[in-house]
Order: sequence, then C-alpha cells, then structure tokens
Amino acid sequence: MKKGTIFSGMRPTGKLHIGHLSVLENWVKLQDEYNCFFGIVDWHALTTAYEDTSEIKENIRLMLLDWLSVGLDPEKSTIIVQSHVKEHAELHLLFSMITPLSWLERVPTYKDQIQQLGKEGKDISTYGFLGYPLLQAADILIYRANAVPVGEDQLPHLELCREIARRFNHLYQTDILPEPQAILAKVSLLPGVDGRKMSKSYNNFIPLGAAVEEILEKVQMMVTDPARIRKTDPGNPEVCLVHTYQNIYNPAEIEEIRLSCRSGSIGCVACKKRLAGRLEEFLTPIRERRVYYENKPQLLKEILENGAEKARAEARKTLDLVRSVMKI
Amino acid sequence: MKKGTIFSGMRPTGKLHIGHLSVLENWVKLQDEYNCFFGIVDWHALTTAYEDTSEIKENIRLMLLDWLSVGLDPEKSTIIVQSHVKEHAELHLLFSMITPLSWLERVPTYKDQIQQLGKEGKDISTYGFLGYPLLQAADILIYRANAVPVGEDQLPHLELCREIARRFNHLYQTDILPEPQAILAKVSLLPGVDGRKMSKSYNNFIPLGAAVEEILEKVQMMVTDPARIRKTDPGNPEVCLVHTYQNIYNPAEIEEIRLSCRSGSIGCVACKKRLAGRLEEFLTPIRERRVYYENKPQLLKEILENGAEKARAEARKTLDLVRSVMKI
Repeated sequence: MKKGTIFSGMRPTGKLHIGHLSVLENWVKLQDEYNCFFGIVDWHALTTAYEDTSEIKENIRLMLLDWLSVGLDPEKSTIIVQSHVKEHAELHLLFSMITPLSWLERVPTYKDQIQQLGKEGKDISTYGFLGYPLLQAADILIYRANAVPVGEDQLPHLELCREIARRFNHLYQTDILPEPQAILAKVSLLPGVDGRKMSKSYNNFIPLGAAVEEILEKVQMMVTDPARIRKTDPGNPEVCLVHTYQNIYNPAEIEEIRLSCRSGSIGCVACKKRLAGRLEEFLTPIRERRVYYENKPQLLKEILENGAEKARAEARKTLDLVRSVMKI
Repeated sequence: MKKGTIFSGMRPTGKLHIGHLSVLENWVKLQDEYNCFFGIVDWHALTTAYEDTSEIKENIRLMLLDWLSVGLDPEKSTIIVQSHVKEHAELHLLFSMITPLSWLERVPTYKDQIQQLGKEGKDISTYGFLGYPLLQAADILIYRANAVPVGEDQLPHLELCREIARRFNHLYQTDILPEPQAILAKVSLLPGVDGRKMSKSYNNFIPLGAAVEEILEKVQMMVTDPARIRKTDPGNPEVCLVHTYQNIYNPAEIEEIRLSCRSGSIGCVACKKRLAGRLEEFLTPIRERRVYYENKPQLLKEILENGAEKARAEARKTLDLVRSVMKI
C-alpha cells in the first residue's frame, strides 16, 4: 500500500552535482513509499532561457542520466519530460481562468527573481514567468498528487498550489483536487570546493558523474586551516572545508581525523587523499550506473516514452474529471 | 488556388441574431477564397464565465447550428470547438514565455473590460483574462493563418498577434509564423427592435432561427415616427426604425415605401407587415437549414470530430515547426 501520490520536478539546467544529492536521495527513498511522478520540467526552463534554448535538449539527457545514476528507478517511478505530456498545458490554461492575477503578483520570489536576473541582463518579465507557479500547480495537480517533496524556499509556491486546488474545488463544488502537503526535504548546505555556495556558475562543484581524477582535483582545491603552515602543526578542523566534507562522507573515521588534525599527526594532503578516497567510493557506483545508461540511448528513449505514456493516462483521468465538474 | 489561410472565432455566448449576419455572411463568402478555420472558442468563454459554466456546452451546440444555418459549409471550411484542439493550449504556453507582460497590460480593452464587468459584479481580473489576446494569437497562428476577418474593435488584438509572430520569428531566426493581415469586415450597425444597441441582455434582437410569429412580434415592437398619429398622417422615415430595417432587407421597394410614408398613403401597420414578410423570406431558408441540422445530433458530432481532426493535423505541423526552431 502506497501512502499517496507525489510529483516533483527539476528544470533541466545542466549536470547535477553532489550538492543535489540530498534531494535526490530523498526521492529515491520516496519511490518505495509513494506513487511517484518525477518531471524534467523543460517548459519551466523556457521562463528564463527562451532567448537561448540551444542547451535544453542536451540538458534533458544529462538530467535523466543523473537521475538514473543515483537510483531513480523507472520500474518504480514515472519519469517524464514535462513537454511530452501536453495535458500539463491544458490544465495550466484552465487554471489560468480561475486564478486572480494578484495571487501570482504577490508570490515572494516573483519580483526578487526579475530584479536578480535583470542585473544579469536577462529580461524575464514575461507573461509566462508570472505564470510560473501556476504551471507548477498544474504539474502537481494533473496527477492529483497529495504530497510534494520541497525545500523551504518552495513553500510559497506550494501554498499557491493549495489555494488554487481549494478555489477550484469551491467554484465547481467538488473535491477532486487534493491540497498537496509538503514533504520538507533536508536541503544540503554543502559548500562548494572554494567555500562559497556550490553553484554551476562558480565552477566550484563536484559533478555526480565525476571521474577519479576530477574528484581528486576538486578536493585538492579545498581550503584548509590557513593558520597551519607545516603538516606537523596542530590544525583547527572547525575552519577546514575538508573537515566539513569528511563529516558527511567519512562519518566512521571523523573522530580519529579530528584528533589527528588537532594533534598534528595527519597532514592536509593525507587528509584530502582520504576524503577523495571516500568520495570515490561513494561516487563510483553512481558513475558506473551513469556509464551503463549513457551507452544505451535507445533505453533512455524508451524510459521517457513509457513514462510519458503512464503519465498521460493518469493526466487524462484528471482532465476528464476536471472538464466534467467544470461542465465543459 | 486559395488566397491564404484564415482563422476566426466566436465565443459561445448563446443564440446568434440578425445583428451577427454581416460577419457571418462575410465568412460564408470567404470560404471560397481562403482555406478557412472557424472556431467556437469555448476556452475564451471561461475568461468571463468561469463562475457559471452551466450554459457553455448548450451554447456550443446553438452556435454550431447558427453557423451551419447561415451557410458555413463543413465541406469547405474547418469548423472546430477550440478545446477539442489541445494544440492551441500548447502554443499559448510557448508564446507566454516570450511575451512581455507589458504588451498584454497595455491592450486597450483590458482595463476597460475589467471595469465594465466589475460594475456588473463579475470579477475577471484573472491571469487568464490578462492572457486572452495571447490565446487569440495562438488560435490564429497555430494554423499559420495569414488573414483574419475582424471588426475595427479587434484591431489592437490582431496587432498584438502580429507583434508576437514578429518577436517569435526574430528570437528563433525563422520565418515560419506569418504576420496575419486584417480583413476588415463591415460591422452591422443594425439597432435592436427598441432602437437601442442589439444585444442579448436587452432582449431586443431577432434570432437567426426566429419563427414567423416571433418575427412579426418583434417587428410590431419597432418604434416608428412618434409624431404620426393616424395612418393617413404623413410620416418621417428618417426617424423610423422600420425604415432602417426596410433599407437593409427590402432594398427593391425602399423608394416606393419612403414616398408612401411621406405622403401618408401607407400606414405603419401595413409597412411593418411588409417588413415582416421580407424578413420571413430572408430567414426562412436559414431556419430550414437549422431545423435540418437540429434533428441530426450525430451529424453535428461528426462535423465537429472531422473538423477537430483536420485542425489537429494542421496544428501539429505548426507545433513541429515551432518546437524545431525553438530547439525543444
């Protein structure tokens, strides 16, 4: 018995990195508990990338590989590309007719992001960008999902989705649309290898598909205790980025490493090597699964086709209900 | 050889009346010159009717009957219900990503209509109402129509459609979308039988399907020269509503009628009878065609199914092109 239905999605913006792992590991776990729909939401990517769409197709492929490599299982979950399931667009259009403009204008991220991206020279003050959270609501409610794994920052969008479901049910005197609950996912605060926020634009991330050399190279870039000159000097793990990573990826040895660092009996180079070894151990099965799928383009195609077919069947059921209560 | 492709649509708001004839007669003529798509745009009806959708389905049926009864020919034209061709929704969504919000906010009818309907107690300040002209642009451009028969009042919407086509072509370095030209239709200024604007809400109209008794009854309501007391008094045709109608529906006898009125040799009752006779002559074939179709629900269903199928084939070609140049 499944606990319910989940929808969650990611915009195809490029290769995922270990900073995304906490979200993805949560998804992998949820596969066994819920009827899951995971969407690569390419229409959403257009809100900010309509002027240069050249990378969207390749980014969809890369994202699918990343998802499969961490253990999303097409036998358990329905994996889709949003634009393959046109029903999202129809429900979005129907929702647009009942959604007050002011609800969208007051979404906290709306004006922030227009300003933020405006500084980068991107003009995203489009009708579609304003409607972004409405399309998200359609993404979720087209599967009548009653739960959505989200980070704190996405809570206002989910609240809007719930308000739309409520308004729809009220207007058409029905209860066909659930008000989806948040499954609050622990968001990773793993910093990038330069100590800043891990981000594609800073090139300070370790990709999920990183090879041994890249892992080592990235770990070598990590800043350790700047007061430690010689390897026999006692170090302070509290200010060491390698230590932050050891904490997550090497919990079994963390006490010993902390003591050895403080006593000066382990040098930073050796400490980094041990971290690289652990990361390698951790990322190797992920990379191997990735390679497995990477060489099977036909299989990838089939996974998305089967996903779309399953999703469409479910989406059509919802739209039939929606049209029926709307008497259209 | 056809001159091009046309799309035009009407919202299913109820039975049409003789005030709509000038537009419809123009459509009937255009059928032979253009590849025509005529849409009963039910999604548009939702912009103002989302709170009470109970009449939409029946209004679609009535509109189809009206269209067929005046001579729209499913063998010549593609007649569709908008919501049967989901591709309109997808193109609308794609256009939403490239359309600046300000373009929609500055459409002259936008704020006017919100105010106007606000006075009637209807709240239409929704996301969908703001996007109304964008959905119209998708309706037209999904068939790559290069001409649209419109009244003067719709010109700003058509201009927006052209701007969207231009922006799309520019962004994606293509020329797949035409910039549709207006075919300015002579808009009927026929007043209602009470002298006010002919309108459903005033109940002062003569429906296209009016029976003989209804025609006579409505003509009898028409106001004639109020200064004329006895039927032998000389009348002033310039202030007589019956005369306005005779002008349109009885051009062969108009000179004689005018003289007889001025000389007092024809009374208002007789004059009205002659008008009713002409209207009857005019509306009888329309009513008969209507009755013919009214009793064939299966045929009506087939007309819309065939229309949707033909329209979808064309719409899919456009979307394939659109997705291809957008690289999605």
